[in-house]
Amino acid sequence: MAAKLKEKIDLPVSQVRRYLEPGPIVLVSSAHAGSRNIMTMGWHTVMEFTPSLIGCIIAGGNHSFDLIRASRECVINLPTTALTDEVVGIGNTSGAEIDKFAHFGLTPLPAQRVKAPLIGECHAHFECRLADGALVDQYNFFIFEVVAAQIAKSPKQPETLHYTGDGVFMVSGKTISRRSLLQPGML
Amino acid sequence: MAAKLKEKIDLPVSQVRRYLEPGPIVLVSSAHAGSRNIMTMGWHTVMEFTPSLIGCIIAGGNHSFDLIRASRECVINLPTTALTDEVVGIGNTSGAEIDKFAHFGLTPLPAQRVKAPLIGECHAHFECRLADGALVDQYNFFIFEVVAAQIAKSPKQPETLHYTGDGVFMVSGKTISRRSLLQPGML
Repeated sequence: MAAKLKEKIDLPVSQVRRYLEPGPIVLVSSAHAGSRNIMTMGWHTVMEFTPSLIGCIIAGGNHSFDLIRASRECVINLPTTALTDEVVGIGNTSGAEIDKFAHFGLTPLPAQRVKAPLIGECHAHFECRLADGALVDQYNFFIFEVVAAQIAKSPKQPETLHYTGDGVFMVSGKTISRRSLLQPGML
Repeated sequence: MAAKLKEKIDLPVSQVRRYLEPGPIVLVSSAHAGSRNIMTMGWHTVMEFTPSLIGCIIAGGNHSFDLIRASRECVINLPTTALTDEVVGIGNTSGAEIDKFAHFGLTPLPAQRVKAPLIGECHAHFECRLADGALVDQYNFFIFEVVAAQIAKSPKQPETLHYTGDGVFMVSGKTISRRSLLQPGML
């Protein structure tokens, strides 16, 4: 049973690091020429605040690779533990054989700035355009610019999934603040 | 008060993703021409199993940038919550002004394959050599090959720190397994 749709609010794209720097598993949605797909992705990093850049590995064997390379767009969606089984199922299946939105009961919603659909049940959506494909051939490494971002109004601390390999996920735990100790430039 | 030194064991470098894919804050140690330093880093991603590749951002303004660019080596060390104050302090200070090992009471230990020192109090050490610097000028993005790896014998699930910006860290929580559901190729 998938998570319910939640009301979303816009997030400045320079703040995407709040959600991606902690290292969660994400669901990448894409579309091209009447075909759409979702893939599970764990290899990504923030690269810059402004422009808001994300680097990530999308292996050449994935159906999503072709859709994203051709459309030069995707959406990075942030699932929570409510979607654990979908995250695993999406990683286990190929978009060349099934429509993952339909198969997993996920809701495609229109994005603001790209043609790839959002996954409605996710906590956050980061709409991406390809910024630099120079390392795609050698490393399958894509550099995207986040051009729009939305997050659920609640909860403030979503339970995210962090993959450790071998089928085991670490779930995000408590938060601790050292804000008072940090230099302003270090925030 | 720093964490104590722990007994370490070798880890196959192809398994580094178990520790870095979940997205922890790491401490990068480096050395060159009689100078050494430590920096706090949150922007990194696994890029390949074999060779074991890690991509990361090291901003040009950091003292570590010059040491790593010149030596073409570093060590990515994994701190736990026992080192929270050191992680913050290291991020707040510049190696151009202080010796961070001495200032924070951290123990430099010899590495196996690189000249940069390990940080003894950390849970794991990933010794890195620069594999590809093609994106350093444009993005401060370094691609390292992990050439040796060591982890503490215990605990199996270290409490790692995951930075969300604004001085707030998420601490790693419980683990959940879906191993029985995963296709072998998806592990």
